[in-house]
Amino acid sequence: MPRGGLQSRAEQLSTLLRLAHVRFTSDAVGRLLETLEDELANRPFDSDEASLVRVTRRDYDEARKLPADLVAEVARAGTVARPAWEKARRDEKFSLFEPYLVKNVELNRRIADAIGYEDRPYDALLNRSEPGLKTAELEAIFAELKRAIVPLVADIARHADAVDDRVLYRGFDPDLQVSYALETVKRLGYDLERGRQDISTHPFSTAFGPGDVRITTRVSRDFFNECLFGSIHESGHAMYNQGMGQNIDRTPLWGGASPGVHESQSRLWENLVGRSFPFWRHFYPSLRSVFQEPLRGVDEEGFYRAVNRSYPSFIRVEADEVTYNMHVLLRFELENEMLEGALKVKDLPEAWDARFKSYLGLTVPNDREGALQDIHWSYVSFGIFPGYTIGNLIGAQLMEKIRVELPDLNAQIERGEFAALLSWLRKNVHRHGRKFTPNELMERATGKPLTAKPWIAYVQKKFGALYGLNEARKAAP
Amino acid sequence: MPRGGLQSRAEQLSTLLRLAHVRFTSDAVGRLLETLEDELANRPFDSDEASLVRVTRRDYDEARKLPADLVAEVARAGTVARPAWEKARRDEKFSLFEPYLVKNVELNRRIADAIGYEDRPYDALLNRSEPGLKTAELEAIFAELKRAIVPLVADIARHADAVDDRVLYRGFDPDLQVSYALETVKRLGYDLERGRQDISTHPFSTAFGPGDVRITTRVSRDFFNECLFGSIHESGHAMYNQGMGQNIDRTPLWGGASPGVHESQSRLWENLVGRSFPFWRHFYPSLRSVFQEPLRGVDEEGFYRAVNRSYPSFIRVEADEVTYNMHVLLRFELENEMLEGALKVKDLPEAWDARFKSYLGLTVPNDREGALQDIHWSYVSFGIFPGYTIGNLIGAQLMEKIRVELPDLNAQIERGEFAALLSWLRKNVHRHGRKFTPNELMERATGKPLTAKPWIAYVQKKFGALYGLNEARKAAP
Repeated sequence: MPRGGLQSRAEQLSTLLRLAHVRFTSDAVGRLLETLEDELANRPFDSDEASLVRVTRRDYDEARKLPADLVAEVARAGTVARPAWEKARRDEKFSLFEPYLVKNVELNRRIADAIGYEDRPYDALLNRSEPGLKTAELEAIFAELKRAIVPLVADIARHADAVDDRVLYRGFDPDLQVSYALETVKRLGYDLERGRQDISTHPFSTAFGPGDVRITTRVSRDFFNECLFGSIHESGHAMYNQGMGQNIDRTPLWGGASPGVHESQSRLWENLVGRSFPFWRHFYPSLRSVFQEPLRGVDEEGFYRAVNRSYPSFIRVEADEVTYNMHVLLRFELENEMLEGALKVKDLPEAWDARFKSYLGLTVPNDREGALQDIHWSYVSFGIFPGYTIGNLIGAQLMEKIRVELPDLNAQIERGEFAALLSWLRKNVHRHGRKFTPNELMERATGKPLTAKPWIAYVQKKFGALYGLNEARKAAP
Repeated sequence: MPRGGLQSRAEQLSTLLRLAHVRFTSDAVGRLLETLEDELANRPFDSDEASLVRVTRRDYDEARKLPADLVAEVARAGTVARPAWEKARRDEKFSLFEPYLVKNVELNRRIADAIGYEDRPYDALLNRSEPGLKTAELEAIFAELKRAIVPLVADIARHADAVDDRVLYRGFDPDLQVSYALETVKRLGYDLERGRQDISTHPFSTAFGPGDVRITTRVSRDFFNECLFGSIHESGHAMYNQGMGQNIDRTPLWGGASPGVHESQSRLWENLVGRSFPFWRHFYPSLRSVFQEPLRGVDEEGFYRAVNRSYPSFIRVEADEVTYNMHVLLRFELENEMLEGALKVKDLPEAWDARFKSYLGLTVPNDREGALQDIHWSYVSFGIFPGYTIGNLIGAQLMEKIRVELPDLNAQIERGEFAALLSWLRKNVHRHGRKFTPNELMERATGKPLTAKPWIAYVQKKFGALYGLNEARKAAP
């Protein structure tokens, strides 16, 4: 958007969101809901009709608590803070963004107060994005993750030489990368009759309905991972949206169950499938025929190891599977502390850098690679970051169950067959849209609420093998 | 848009347009208008307040005549007809589009009947796009144009050798063309703080408010005109939108006075400026330094002559200044005849080809280059085509007046100075937005209603000189 469009865009968004809010929260909608609740009292919990009313009631009750002025102010604040964040980032100067973040923290606090909460203000915000989840539960999950990850990161650091990823930097023709990525996501099941792929600075997926779900990707000649794994990631989001039924199109049930559940679909395809050995058993021969020069002398196992190299780094979106959740933990803690007033916004960079050193052992060189790296805080949204970790956990938890129901999944992937996997996801996750909360969905799909155990077991096993940690432990005195 | 998105898009547009229509045409809006009409009865005609109420009243009274079901049906029909038109065009088979056009003619007829008219059903449609203009007036203007153009085209054909445009096909680096075009439109006055340029298959301009007005362009290595003149054309539209005041932003007065007035701004910059000799006196040296190889041995006069070559051709959007209006006349006549039932849709290709032969002397090779060439009929809009000719006429009529008020305009253009010209257009056209009808605007700016005379004088003089027609006449026995 040209700079001159900023103010108008802020006003337009603010007007639209205010109007939508005012109409949705009218007494008339409340009366309609009451009538429907009476009429549909005997419908099964998971029927379209009962779910439509239940989910709309949840949205309605929450929206009724937010004054229209606050909704409009949040929309406006988010739009004007964004270019300030961009400039602060460009200039590596947190102080330029500080007043906007102060405002946004205050707005988040006002949202939390308006919605109300029993224990922690963050509960109110978290419930908006991950309905049914409590801050305390999340803290327990992160504590469990920290106990598992911190020693694993240290173990890997001691065996860093075990994995060599230099092949990824040998130079890959960008056009060929983009077409290879598109062919790959088609094979996984992304339907191009109802989608398309374009190039953008930051990859994303967007949906206008089940018949039009698009992805973007980016490509770097000098680093292989961006294009292929970015495309698989976005196609995971897109297949989720393509799998939502026509029966819920244009209803409040359409859309992802939560950012966390959405992320589970992208991360499952990107990591649990795309970074698995069976996947590369299948795809590596065709990859090598397309990129003969850079892949010279590298076999499928070497390539599989390269794309899985784990090492502490500064940027969340480039982090490997093991360290990724520590980036999220950091943000979750800092958001909470700012919201509760325990951390002043002006002290954020210092707190960020100290925490980063403690969790990942690195010294943050500047605010651009530190507290200014993510766009999220510029558009007011607190309570979104945990979804990235929740997505990783849900992905592993689903996959544990899938492997029970599709015992030959590895063999299918080796043959390049993804239909059974996609069908399972469609049946157990995609088609439901927003019908169930994340925990309801997990209970139905796996028999358990959200848990970190499958993900911890997965990374310990996978990276233990990649870095020879188990052998090392065995060999240790 | 992916094919799968079509049905949803049709339903979404249909819903949005229906809701907007229902809200706008409510009795409450009528009461507000009545109150304001009383309160503002003494405000001057051209004040923002009086104009706002007057123009909204016109929109309201027209919209009240259209049933919401018809509005929704038109939106849906337009969306589903488009891919049918695309396929028919690809297959060069009019019959594939025929049933959709039958439907669209019927919808146009229903619109005309709902709005009402005194003389001709086309009056009702024309009044929606070019308020205040009558079909009969337009017929008189086209008759005058035909009398002037047909013999001019014949004269030019007899002297075709006088202009050689082969230089345009010598091969121009596409990236350099795009950046040269962008530099050029910046020089004309297109403000990139409030705009941007992108590439698209068909060039267009779009505006989200005065602070965000964008253009797209396309580029061909093998034909110079597309990129530069396309960019100038779109920047003419964009400068119009950028020149609308903040005082009318987000009001019903924002937007072009009519498609015809909008087109006058694009065509004025593209042709009356961009295809003038003073323009090339200024720009040719820099153009030659960028494209040394293809421009070798061609001087500024030769290049000026090349970009002005006139010859009958099949495609409206590629037609030169002289023949362009004959393409519009053809469509205007055929629309009218279909609407009045004098021409059956199934006979359209035959009528098109016969009329084309008679006006431009060419035999249409297929429906793709004939009756299927324009997108407009696929989205229901009849009464839009005349705007293209009206735009040419308004451009010349404004320019006649501008030359009186800026007597040294040619010298300014030769120096690459466009600020006085742009200021004049801002003051007399742009800032008013929708405040005045096309004729009101022309009366205020030039002292006369719309007339074809300045345009006819302009092309006769310019092309007479280019093709040596006056000398030829003098030399004739």
